[in-house]
Amino acid sequence: MSKEFKYVTKIYYEDTDAGGVVYYANYLKFLERARSEAIYSLGLSNKEILEKEGVIIIVKTCNIEYKKPAKFEDEIEIISNIKEVKNSSFKMRQVIKKKFDIISEADVVLVTVNKKGKPVRIPSILKKLID
Amino acid sequence: MSKEFKYVTKIYYEDTDAGGVVYYANYLKFLERARSEAIYSLGLSNKEILEKEGVIIIVKTCNIEYKKPAKFEDEIEIISNIKEVKNSSFKMRQVIKKKFDIISEADVVLVTVNKKGKPVRIPSILKKLID
Amino acid sequence: MSKEFKYVTKIYYEDTDAGGVVYYANYLKFLERARSEAIYSLGLSNKEILEKEGVIIIVKTCNIEYKKPAKFEDEIEIISNIKEVKNSSFKMRQVIKKKFDIISEADVVLVTVNKKGKPVRIPSILKKLID
Amino acid sequence: MSKEFKYVTKIYYEDTDAGGVVYYANYLKFLERARSEAIYSLGLSNKEILEKEGVIIIVKTCNIEYKKPAKFEDEIEIISNIKEVKNSSFKMRQVIKKKFDIISEADVVLVTVNKKGKPVRIPSILKKLID
Repeated sequence: MSKEFKYVTKIYYEDTDAGGVVYYANYLKFLERARSEAIYSLGLSNKEILEKEGVIIIVKTCNIEYKKPAKFEDEIEIISNIKEVKNSSFKMRQVIKKKFDIISEADVVLVTVNKKGKPVRIPSILKKLID
Repeated sequence: MSKEFKYVTKIYYEDTDAGGVVYYANYLKFLERARSEAIYSLGLSNKEILEKEGVIIIVKTCNIEYKKPAKFEDEIEIISNIKEVKNSSFKMRQVIKKKFDIISEADVVLVTVNKKGKPVRIPSILKKLID
Repeated sequence: MSKEFKYVTKIYYEDTDAGGVVYYANYLKFLERARSEAIYSLGLSNKEILEKEGVIIIVKTCNIEYKKPAKFEDEIEIISNIKEVKNSSFKMRQVIKKKFDIISEADVVLVTVNKKGKPVRIPSILKKLID
Repeated sequence: MSKEFKYVTKIYYEDTDAGGVVYYANYLKFLERARSEAIYSLGLSNKEILEKEGVIIIVKTCNIEYKKPAKFEDEIEIISNIKEVKNSSFKMRQVIKKKFDIISEADVVLVTVNKKGKPVRIPSILKKLID
C-alpha cells in the first residue's frame, strides 16, 4: 500500500495537438507507461505475468481530471500509488506533475483477466509485491 | 438537453494494441471525434468558435468505464448526449456501442476557455444550440 | 493494375501537433486506413485473409514526401493505386489530397507474410483482385 | 558530419498493434523523439530555435525500410547521423536497433522553415553545431 512509483518523461511533438498542449487522450499513454515501469521496478514484466500466469492486467475504469496543460518540451513526472488491492482488481492513484504544478490526477481501477478476458485472482507473484 | 448525436467509425490497426483489442487511450480519440462531429452537425466548427468567439472547448474531466473490448475491423457507434449545461461548462454522456454491446461509457465535462485557458461563458452561437 | 481506391477522412485534434498541422507520422495512419478500406471495397478483410489463408499484409518500405500541411478540420482524400504486383509483394502509390492541393505522396511496398513473418505468395483471393 | 546521436526507449502498449508488433507509423515517432533529443544534446531546443530564430524544423521526406519487428517491452536504440547539410535543409540517417538486430533504417530530409512554412537558411546557432 505504501509503494510509490515515479516515472519521468518528456513531451514530444507526437504528444501535442493543434491547441499547442498535450492532447487529452495522450495523458493516458503516460499513465500506462508509468504503470508498466512500476511493474518493471518490481522485477516483473507484463510478458512474464502473461507467460507464467496466463494473466493480463487491463483497465476497468479511468477517472481523470485535467488541471493544467503540459506543453511541448516540458518534462513531466508521473507519481503512482496503489490505493486498494482486492481479489482480482486493484486501484491506483496517478498524479502527473510538472515541477510543482499538478497537470492531471487520475484514479484507475485495474483488473487481472485471463486470455479470454475473464477476471481471475491477482497472481501471487504480483500480489505479494503490491499488497 | 434532448439532443443526441451519433458517430460511426471503424477500428483500424492504429487503434489496436498487442492485446489484440483497442488500446484504452484510443477510445478517448473516438469520443473526441464524436464531439467534433456533433459540433459540425450543429452547423459549427471548432475553428469558427475560436475565430469568431476566441473560445476553445477543453476537457476538464473524463470518467470512462471499459465494459467490453472493441477489436480490429469492428464497426462501432458513439452516441453522445448533452446532460447538463452551465455558464462555462457542459457535461456529456458518451456511449460506445458495437451492435447491441456496450463497449465503453464515459461522462465528460467540457469547459469553454479563452486563448489564455481561462474559463469563459459558453458563446451564444453554441449555447443556443445545446441548451 | 488500373484499380484506383478513394478514401475520405477528416483531420481531428488527435491528428495534429503543436505546429498546428498534422503530425508527420499520422499521415501513415491515413495511408493504412485507405489500404484497409481498399481491401474492404474488394469484398475482403484483413481478418478473413488471416483466418482463411494464414497471411498478413505488412509494410516493407514507405517513401513519403510531405508537400503541404493538412490542418485541423480539413477534409482530405487518399487516392491509392496498385503499381506493381510480384509473387509475395505489391507496390502502391498513395496520394493525399485536399481539394486540388497535393498534401503528401507515398510509395509503399507491401509484403504478404505468414504468422511467423516469412514472405509467402500473395493468396489467390487477393491476387485475382489486384492483378 | 561526424556527429552521432543515440536515443534509447522502450516499447509500450501504445506503440504496438493487433499484429503484436510496433505499428509501422509509430517508428516515425521514435525517429522524431531521437531527433529532438539530438537537438537537446546540442544544448538547443525546438522552442528556442522557434523563439530566437523564428524557425521550425519540418520533415520533407522520410524513406523508411522495415527489416524486423520490434515487440512489446523490447528496448530499442535509435542511432542518428547527419549525412548532408545544405542551406535550408539537412539529411539524416536514422537506424533503429534492438541489440544486434536492425529493426528499421530511415533516410530523413529536414527543412528549416519560417512560421509561414517558407524554407529559410538553417539558423547559425544550429548550423555551426551540425556542419
